[in-house]
Amino acid sequence: MRTLDQVRPTLPANWYYDQEHYSRELDAIWYRDWICVGRMDALRRDGDYFVVKLGTQSIVVTRLPDGTLNAFHNTCRHRGTTLCRDDQGHFRNGRVVCPYHTWAYATDGRLVGTPGRIETEDFDAKNYSLYATHVEIWRGFIFINLSNSPVLQLDEFLGDEVNALRNWPLEDMRSVHQEKIALACNWKIFWENYSECYHCPRVHPELCKVTPIYEKGVLSAADLPDFDPEYDGDSIDAAVGGGAKTWTMNGEISLPIIQGPTEEERTQGVTFSSFASSLYVVGHPEFVRSVRIMPTGPESMELTVDWLLPSSYEAEDKQILEPILGLTRLVIQQDGDVCELNQQGLHSMRHQSGALIPQEYELWDFHESIRNKLANMEMK
Amino acid sequence: MRTLDQVRPTLPANWYYDQEHYSRELDAIWYRDWICVGRMDALRRDGDYFVVKLGTQSIVVTRLPDGTLNAFHNTCRHRGTTLCRDDQGHFRNGRVVCPYHTWAYATDGRLVGTPGRIETEDFDAKNYSLYATHVEIWRGFIFINLSNSPVLQLDEFLGDEVNALRNWPLEDMRSVHQEKIALACNWKIFWENYSECYHCPRVHPELCKVTPIYEKGVLSAADLPDFDPEYDGDSIDAAVGGGAKTWTMNGEISLPIIQGPTEEERTQGVTFSSFASSLYVVGHPEFVRSVRIMPTGPESMELTVDWLLPSSYEAEDKQILEPILGLTRLVIQQDGDVCELNQQGLHSMRHQSGALIPQEYELWDFHESIRNKLANMEMK
Amino acid sequence: MRTLDQVRPTLPANWYYDQEHYSRELDAIWYRDWICVGRMDALRRDGDYFVVKLGTQSIVVTRLPDGTLNAFHNTCRHRGTTLCRDDQGHFRNGRVVCPYHTWAYATDGRLVGTPGRIETEDFDAKNYSLYATHVEIWRGFIFINLSNSPVLQLDEFLGDEVNALRNWPLEDMRSVHQEKIALACNWKIFWENYSECYHCPRVHPELCKVTPIYEKGVLSAADLPDFDPEYDGDSIDAAVGGGAKTWTMNGEISLPIIQGPTEEERTQGVTFSSFASSLYVVGHPEFVRSVRIMPTGPESMELTVDWLLPSSYEAEDKQILEPILGLTRLVIQQDGDVCELNQQGLHSMRHQSGALIPQEYELWDFHESIRNKLANMEMK
Repeated sequence: MRTLDQVRPTLPANWYYDQEHYSRELDAIWYRDWICVGRMDALRRDGDYFVVKLGTQSIVVTRLPDGTLNAFHNTCRHRGTTLCRDDQGHFRNGRVVCPYHTWAYATDGRLVGTPGRIETEDFDAKNYSLYATHVEIWRGFIFINLSNSPVLQLDEFLGDEVNALRNWPLEDMRSVHQEKIALACNWKIFWENYSECYHCPRVHPELCKVTPIYEKGVLSAADLPDFDPEYDGDSIDAAVGGGAKTWTMNGEISLPIIQGPTEEERTQGVTFSSFASSLYVVGHPEFVRSVRIMPTGPESMELTVDWLLPSSYEAEDKQILEPILGLTRLVIQQDGDVCELNQQGLHSMRHQSGALIPQEYELWDFHESIRNKLANMEMK
Repeated sequence: MRTLDQVRPTLPANWYYDQEHYSRELDAIWYRDWICVGRMDALRRDGDYFVVKLGTQSIVVTRLPDGTLNAFHNTCRHRGTTLCRDDQGHFRNGRVVCPYHTWAYATDGRLVGTPGRIETEDFDAKNYSLYATHVEIWRGFIFINLSNSPVLQLDEFLGDEVNALRNWPLEDMRSVHQEKIALACNWKIFWENYSECYHCPRVHPELCKVTPIYEKGVLSAADLPDFDPEYDGDSIDAAVGGGAKTWTMNGEISLPIIQGPTEEERTQGVTFSSFASSLYVVGHPEFVRSVRIMPTGPESMELTVDWLLPSSYEAEDKQILEPILGLTRLVIQQDGDVCELNQQGLHSMRHQSGALIPQEYELWDFHESIRNKLANMEMK
Repeated sequence: MRTLDQVRPTLPANWYYDQEHYSRELDAIWYRDWICVGRMDALRRDGDYFVVKLGTQSIVVTRLPDGTLNAFHNTCRHRGTTLCRDDQGHFRNGRVVCPYHTWAYATDGRLVGTPGRIETEDFDAKNYSLYATHVEIWRGFIFINLSNSPVLQLDEFLGDEVNALRNWPLEDMRSVHQEKIALACNWKIFWENYSECYHCPRVHPELCKVTPIYEKGVLSAADLPDFDPEYDGDSIDAAVGGGAKTWTMNGEISLPIIQGPTEEERTQGVTFSSFASSLYVVGHPEFVRSVRIMPTGPESMELTVDWLLPSSYEAEDKQILEPILGLTRLVIQQDGDVCELNQQGLHSMRHQSGALIPQEYELWDFHESIRNKLANMEMK
């Protein structure tokens, strides 16, 4: 049984709505950590690109001829014009051309052409490459890092959590459906919601039917007082039950089983892999779901949910996806709803902070990591 | 004749639009004074509640089994979630249940249940009662006070002004019609408008017909230079005239006369009772009107107007209320319109403050009370 | 050939979006310089007025019986009410009457009446004139200056630039069409756009057809490396070409030629006259265009474009104006589009400033003037 040994305070309430604190979190977390911004399957050809908003920053990610990626600020070096106005597109002829004065860059960022040759002695095109930012791929997921020199390499940052889904062929999957959801809450509220199942009995009755352990308000059997690790083996994760095989409304699997996961992993029906603060990925026997989180203000955020299937799978008809969309979409809606209620209540002048109860140990860890990141930044 | 003996400056212009000054006024006035937030007739059964926004705060007022009230911040003690999302409703079984994790409170504020018993030694439910706030009733009007220890008791705060309507059966009346009106002006602008009749000839031609003294731009005959208190007795309040009997478009009374007011009070046709900054009440022979004021930002506010009739009166048809709505609704619209114009003009860089002329003595008193409250807070 | 001798930095990126810097620019530039706010032909009769928003200020400009102008803050001296709610109108009987308490002013600003005579000894109407501001006319264009004592007289401020259009009968022209365009960019972005033609080949293909020199990305032949002033005379301005005679889609003139400009000026097809930061005027053989610029926030502005024809010209049909509207309206749209893109890109945390290339010498001068005005203000 994993618990906190005493009730502990949450983060201060004003960290969830204060504009200045929000700016500090952008600097200490979102502009310094590795942040997931999309999937490789969104960039199929050389020159394909997408644009991501991260805080106040607009970043372009594009695919180079050698299959690697380049990421750069969506800003021309000449007078600062936005290079890409669309959310996604394709750079023709390997050229990023500014729509204002047609300064032209190679997709790798080098300035390769300006109209009306600039002939002053001091001008050297090498000094005018696009503002590059770090970009790395982990099994099809694209991460960027806006700091000049990231403290950790991507694999150090991701840590052991990558093992949870090691048997799913993540790099060979593609998004067959995507939804973006704007929520009127601070980004931390959503991550806290994800980090406990104390709310499940009340908020997710349909989900509890296919994952009965959630009826008890815990993330998994390992959180129950009578859990015996010797007897129960290492199944410390949540598992479907009551006859259900996966996270669909009726618990049935209607798409082909994904090759890779073990029998035990398939039987479990659901496996989580979490990469705070921007991504979690959930493996099911027949599909994978990724949920990306982006702050858009002190009291607003955006979710991007992707439903992934093996690349080889051809869904001839969108209708065939309904079973894997139905329950999981409902659960996100239910979570979004209580997250927004949580946000509003924090403004009470009497509410300095809330209380974490023993089951909410993952929230404590999350809060500690935030306190540490803020402290680290301030020491600099 | 009541007047100022010289022209005096208004409050500084930026007190009407500066965000920081607005926050100071919330702290010094709205979060410290007794504020009217509604009527008892809105809470007919035990467990009925309504939610009021006061500045940035959301407060729940509910009726207890013994007929008294409880008021508390709309925030769960667990992780700060909003308890009531609707503007009004009913707590079933005397329980306030958080929609997120179902922490359950009695309507008197005690925490009476949490799912999954919290077994750490340090947890004591007594420490997790709802955040209570002061609430009192004056003749059917509900007042709250957000300070920890109000400087004045409610009756001290209300003072002698309660006498004006002592003969109207206010506690036995109920709202038969309510309108909420959003105005793009600072709350003080509206209260100033209410405090003088210098604007009446221009702004309220219809009202002047039923209250001819207003044609002279004064609140009552007592403000006229030739007023002789010995001769004119003590009728220092405004009175209907020109054949009108009440504040309706044609001056006629079409609903039953309210029992209680004296012959003289009935003949007067209109009697005011003012409780700055959140309420004034106006008694007429056949109805009572209450106007509540709430700031919603430095340059915005909300009015809530209730038309009250004796509880025993059964209006079988809304149409029958039209006479008492018509003129008074028009007057509020006219006032709101000039209040919004007043607000906009204050932004001139040259306008440091305006001028109060002799007839505007009630504005001076209002301004003095605001200066005092701000000074008192800063001494703390 | 006019150029910068080396690449120079632009203004700092945050000067284009920071709220505090925006306030500094209002104080140092927009509230101290002479700002064009309209045309005399909008005020045909005594008592006609219009209202202009300048930063946070609302200013009324009206025509006096002697044909001169008066300008004053749109604020009553009594309690600060907005005097004029409409954008334009007519003061009847030469009186500006406050809509709240009917304080009445002569159009020249004197307080001439208050209802209910104010009898205190200290009250002197002379102390309550409207807040006047400086206003002057240059050839039909109305300029105001909000500072108490303008550093320069209007003619000093306008300087030699007035000579460019000396042969057009500007004072005898009137606006036959006006368009207001809101742009999501800082006002300086638009002025920079106006100050170079490096963007023309990409942004204005239609304009380049009638003004082929723009194809080369320069403002005029004088900016080309092979320009020989001895050979090319003094035609250092842009000129139509390729058979075009004016700035219309097909280069043809379809309205009567304006009397006044020389043969050479007519042949040139386009002549600019610039009065940073609020106005530029463009003379063509058959029409004149004026473009007024107003900041409305750190990242927003408003353009007012007027198409002027001689007052004697009677356009019986709006349709007849289409040729002079078509191309110039398109060019403004194209400029507005890239200006908005320029604005967005400036928010990159990596973009401290951009680079001015040799052809952008007019931007450097513009930036220098802004730096100087800000420095001058801070010395005060």
